[in-house]
Amino acid sequence: MATLWKSRYAQRNQRMSRSVIRELLKLTTQPDVISFAGGLPAPEVFPTERCQEAACTVLQNAGSMALQYGPTEGYLPLRQFICNQMARYGISAQPSNVLITTGSQQALDLIGKLLANAGDLILVEEPTYLGALQAWNAYGAEYVSVPIDDDGLRTDLLEDALRQGPKFMYVLPNFQNPGGTTLALERRLEVVHLSNKYGIPIVEDDPYGALRYAGDHVQPLVALDADYQHSAGLNGHGYMEGNVIYLGTFSKTLAPGLRLGWMVAPVEVIDQLIMGKQGTDLHTSTFDQMLAYEVVKDGFLEQHVRTIRRVYGERRNVMLQALETHFPEGCSWTHPDGGLFLWARVPEEIDTTTLLPLAVEHKVAYVPGTAFFADPTRGHNTMRLNFSNAQPQQIEEGICRLGRMLKEAIAKRLALPATG
Amino acid sequence: MATLWKSRYAQRNQRMSRSVIRELLKLTTQPDVISFAGGLPAPEVFPTERCQEAACTVLQNAGSMALQYGPTEGYLPLRQFICNQMARYGISAQPSNVLITTGSQQALDLIGKLLANAGDLILVEEPTYLGALQAWNAYGAEYVSVPIDDDGLRTDLLEDALRQGPKFMYVLPNFQNPGGTTLALERRLEVVHLSNKYGIPIVEDDPYGALRYAGDHVQPLVALDADYQHSAGLNGHGYMEGNVIYLGTFSKTLAPGLRLGWMVAPVEVIDQLIMGKQGTDLHTSTFDQMLAYEVVKDGFLEQHVRTIRRVYGERRNVMLQALETHFPEGCSWTHPDGGLFLWARVPEEIDTTTLLPLAVEHKVAYVPGTAFFADPTRGHNTMRLNFSNAQPQQIEEGICRLGRMLKEAIAKRLALPATG
Repeated sequence: MATLWKSRYAQRNQRMSRSVIRELLKLTTQPDVISFAGGLPAPEVFPTERCQEAACTVLQNAGSMALQYGPTEGYLPLRQFICNQMARYGISAQPSNVLITTGSQQALDLIGKLLANAGDLILVEEPTYLGALQAWNAYGAEYVSVPIDDDGLRTDLLEDALRQGPKFMYVLPNFQNPGGTTLALERRLEVVHLSNKYGIPIVEDDPYGALRYAGDHVQPLVALDADYQHSAGLNGHGYMEGNVIYLGTFSKTLAPGLRLGWMVAPVEVIDQLIMGKQGTDLHTSTFDQMLAYEVVKDGFLEQHVRTIRRVYGERRNVMLQALETHFPEGCSWTHPDGGLFLWARVPEEIDTTTLLPLAVEHKVAYVPGTAFFADPTRGHNTMRLNFSNAQPQQIEEGICRLGRMLKEAIAKRLALPATG
Repeated sequence: MATLWKSRYAQRNQRMSRSVIRELLKLTTQPDVISFAGGLPAPEVFPTERCQEAACTVLQNAGSMALQYGPTEGYLPLRQFICNQMARYGISAQPSNVLITTGSQQALDLIGKLLANAGDLILVEEPTYLGALQAWNAYGAEYVSVPIDDDGLRTDLLEDALRQGPKFMYVLPNFQNPGGTTLALERRLEVVHLSNKYGIPIVEDDPYGALRYAGDHVQPLVALDADYQHSAGLNGHGYMEGNVIYLGTFSKTLAPGLRLGWMVAPVEVIDQLIMGKQGTDLHTSTFDQMLAYEVVKDGFLEQHVRTIRRVYGERRNVMLQALETHFPEGCSWTHPDGGLFLWARVPEEIDTTTLLPLAVEHKVAYVPGTAFFADPTRGHNTMRLNFSNAQPQQIEEGICRLGRMLKEAIAKRLALPATG
């Protein structure tokens, strides 16, 4: 009987719960629902033809390699390409610092596997990426949360949280998911300073760094930490000896369906992560890695990212304009300089979880904000809105529907907060 | 400093070690080494052309789906195909019983994630698949081992082991890795009986089931368990309510580079595993799943598996013949009816781990048997030999080299056991 299994689930799994986002994706795939819920790239910018050519080239020239088992650390030319690419963003790494992962989600899982004992504290932003919480809940992690504001993580509150002794800090400095905010340079410097002062390392998650639509590039934490250590005389062996594990991905710049991400870390940490990955899935799809390399190797990625920036930048503008026009008074939202999401706050008396079924009736969807809080009793009147997936006229129409529904809800007090 | 990370590794990771097989694969990729070490399929039987056509078709007809995020449980047509395929082997399942995994290795990881608390006992065969040990070591599992003989798991010793209260039994009934042995029908019935008697469920790992070169198909444990429960009146709701999680893979019948496996279990167990997979890698490559479906959907797989059986069956015969000819007296080996491996035992005074560097000098490689024992002090005079990857004349030559080296070692007593 299936109950024989149930009685045997590991204790920590009482805290595993199905991802709200992914369950929502199922509800909102009816073609007439305008969904701001997922974190889906726009399919119309996928480089489908180029992938087709690349798939043919790879299978024709190196089919027996592409279909065979490969090394756990990943396909060397792709790791080398990633190093070259990251150098433009001030990150100095060798292929031995790079592990290819089955999407960035696997990087989060491997970090949990390597570092988290049951009951260990992890410092997270509030709100933070729910997939990280989900990955680490499976290892029995606990959390200490530090709020973000328009300039990202509130570093004025960081020191108190660090004194609680978290295993590491998890920070999304660029166009945060779900907040849409960017961590200001002076705060990045402060994060690095406090990391070194308290001896608490950093996991820097940067899935959207290349997708900036306004403002200037800000150095990633991994580069600032290397500078810090270098000037403090702590690091004589080049950049990659530092306090930061950096996570990147091709999901937003190329295609998420290929499940290709990467981790950058000191060699001895990468070696440990490789062991973890060996036991987890042996290696990431050889074919997908070789295909991606074939697609990106000749400068195509920069050109393609420019297209994505243009398309998503326009959609961001349309959504910001539509929010101004259609959202009722008492609402506020972030103004992201890049990425895929913005974060909206509705009046205190609205519970966005309670309201969601009504939204789906109105043929529009979002992710209720509570999903992004380590403490799920918080954030009841917040929501995450994705602006990359829907086309401009749909964004306008969807925000209009959402605004209308919010106005009704406020007027009729249809949706009282679940938490009184 | 990187040591900041080191001091923070989770306690259980002191037991994580780099896979012996995968490290060996690196050493033995020089083209002049004949390697029996890996578990690599023969690249010359990969259906490269058909994959190329399928890749084009998928990207042309459904590129925006193939490159996009997909459902965690996997691509529905592929799950349906798997159900149809398994029905031929007596396994009755619906798509809701099937979870697509990033190779079978991920299935092992998800089982550890779902079931293993630190210190939990898992019952394994001795020897057993080292990737399973590696997956579960990461969750802090402990083991109780039951030896195999020529008919597979020694069920006469099973009851004592079950009384120690393991969380589940891990069994590879067909052409076991590394043993090459097949679990006899009467023993399968006994395993199912004891599973039900002691209330201890079964993980049945069947990567090679379709690759039989001699003898008749034997019903899988998952089917026998369903029959048992049905006749005991325990199961009114069809087969998939039972005590068995079944693992399958396309790695040996199609291509390992695509990283495509699957799990079959009761719906409520699958639901839990889906949650675990969400936090682990969101989903398996959409493109690879759609590509595989396109390749296999029209009866190609049966035809292709017939080719593989012919090629590997011949190689098995060549290896068995070469062992007879070249191996010194005092050696013995299994005679597998299928799969990729056979298991050799050399004289007691030889330590195959100590001997390996000498073998590589002689331009031949194998996996030392200790890697497959939960208790690494055991199996010093055993080795696993793969017969699928090398071509027949290489097999003959490699076994000749290995035999020569063994004879020298015995004569000169070059390699004394490490364990006195």
